[in-house]
Amino acid sequence: MAVYTDITDEDLQTLLAGFDLGLPLSLKGVAEGVENSNFLLETETGRYFLTIYEKRVRAEDLPFFLDLLTWLSDHGFPSAAPVADRWGQVLQSVRGKPAAIVTFLPGLSVRRPSVSQCRQAGEGLARLHLAVGGFPGRRQNDLGHQAWSPMFARLEADAEALKPGLAATLRKDLEKLDSSWPQDLPTGIIHADFFPDNVFFRGDQFAGAIDFYFACFDALAYDVAIALNAWCFEADGSFNITSARAMLAGYEQHRPLSPAERAALPILAHGAAMRFFLTRLADWGATPAGALVRPKDPLEYERKLAIHREATDLVLFGAPE
Amino acid sequence: MAVYTDITDEDLQTLLAGFDLGLPLSLKGVAEGVENSNFLLETETGRYFLTIYEKRVRAEDLPFFLDLLTWLSDHGFPSAAPVADRWGQVLQSVRGKPAAIVTFLPGLSVRRPSVSQCRQAGEGLARLHLAVGGFPGRRQNDLGHQAWSPMFARLEADAEALKPGLAATLRKDLEKLDSSWPQDLPTGIIHADFFPDNVFFRGDQFAGAIDFYFACFDALAYDVAIALNAWCFEADGSFNITSARAMLAGYEQHRPLSPAERAALPILAHGAAMRFFLTRLADWGATPAGALVRPKDPLEYERKLAIHREATDLVLFGAPE
Repeated sequence: MAVYTDITDEDLQTLLAGFDLGLPLSLKGVAEGVENSNFLLETETGRYFLTIYEKRVRAEDLPFFLDLLTWLSDHGFPSAAPVADRWGQVLQSVRGKPAAIVTFLPGLSVRRPSVSQCRQAGEGLARLHLAVGGFPGRRQNDLGHQAWSPMFARLEADAEALKPGLAATLRKDLEKLDSSWPQDLPTGIIHADFFPDNVFFRGDQFAGAIDFYFACFDALAYDVAIALNAWCFEADGSFNITSARAMLAGYEQHRPLSPAERAALPILAHGAAMRFFLTRLADWGATPAGALVRPKDPLEYERKLAIHREATDLVLFGAPE
Repeated sequence: MAVYTDITDEDLQTLLAGFDLGLPLSLKGVAEGVENSNFLLETETGRYFLTIYEKRVRAEDLPFFLDLLTWLSDHGFPSAAPVADRWGQVLQSVRGKPAAIVTFLPGLSVRRPSVSQCRQAGEGLARLHLAVGGFPGRRQNDLGHQAWSPMFARLEADAEALKPGLAATLRKDLEKLDSSWPQDLPTGIIHADFFPDNVFFRGDQFAGAIDFYFACFDALAYDVAIALNAWCFEADGSFNITSARAMLAGYEQHRPLSPAERAALPILAHGAAMRFFLTRLADWGATPAGALVRPKDPLEYERKLAIHREATDLVLFGAPE
């Protein structure tokens, strides 16, 4: 939950004066997203989301994110579309912070995805990868595989404190990831955070994706690996092969994986687990006790790391056993 | 801001199975109200508010509150109307906590009310008092004038710590309020928390009121006094007589005050300031450092107390000077 910036009726009037959206009818701070302040805004012309970008999103990245959302909605992918003001500008300022109004995207996220929802999510991710083809924007993946060893160097003591012996294990993981990270896979703009809470359904049908604030240029199959980790583990920590096969089948219905992409899935999933383990460990250590937002438990991804460390072949991802 | 209870898609499905509201399309936790968890719910049939009642609202009071909301909406007052399930029940249970679905009431609250908005708020309060006439429910005012001396006894040291000498001053205030509290004023169900953040406007027009969870049986003019304190003080602590006159004129457009009610306004406003000072002081002391919800500053109402202590005649409320 997150509303870091408070908006008065006067702030709202000032902002809306630049738009052709009619009078404001309702504004509700929404407990969604840990990165930004979000408000559900209703005006005489419809419903919108007003986002105020807090410090975790770099201001220089905002044109990329907003252009990407515009591109996606122009290319038939269900996502929130930025709304331009009378002068064609999307990026706004509220209380001295960057802000944007986007269209409201209806849909419900699911907590424990069913196999059929995993399949739908796979379809949605492939649709995203196809829709984004040709988008000219570029943003480097700050949290890509080259970043993991430097991140780990800063977090080594925290990792060891979390679980004795873990630092040495992670060091070996990183050596392996460094030496065998796949090159030359098909690239494009990836969502990079395609977790169940960022994916909307209507009933059991994929209805869109939100929260593109980690989107970046990287291997498309790495996005698939992130999603497999996020969707196909059970609450008890086991990997659900049926869900994984369903997700891949859904994905391949729209965008078949190349043999090289499929062969790379185990190492990509191992790396994806490392990326989320490291950022969660960093957030865990950096959060004062009693803080507003409780960080996610890094141990969840430590267990996923362990599973990918052991299962290096394709069995997890649907190869014949 | 407040979302204390997390709702999964499965919880929502279970709840909605008892209603004829169609499929859920969207659910957003809303940062509104410090007493309950609130969600903006969209289904195929419209938009609703789902409230989960947390421990500050007593379960035995819920039928009163929900009956009151139903009565108000049946009697033309713009407020959220409880939605009954297929068996006619309004009170529900989510994750073991009491819950209710009400219709969505559009509107924007204002931060710094203009004189014209104070007038509109006065009109709205009178419309509320008229609409609620005949409502058979009763709920005692737990925070009424009889409660203040016992509350103060528990908070005396905190008051003195807030401002040296304050405890003795408050003791004198309470003696005066006890000895001269008006009896026999017209009574009814009052909102008892008619603050700007609980009142909605559309443009400059009164559009309804929310958050009836302090509603109780008391003198109607005491509700007016609470509203005068909440709407007619400037940010610098001064009382805006123009706003107060506008609020009273708006109120009297629908429900003229009797001479006894008007004569009682200074002591009622003094008492209303005492009530909010005491509860804010209690919340202030009870809140651990770094808590999710920052309590409101009790000194704001200490300053209002001081103003009403000095101005005991009707000048503040529009009598000829």
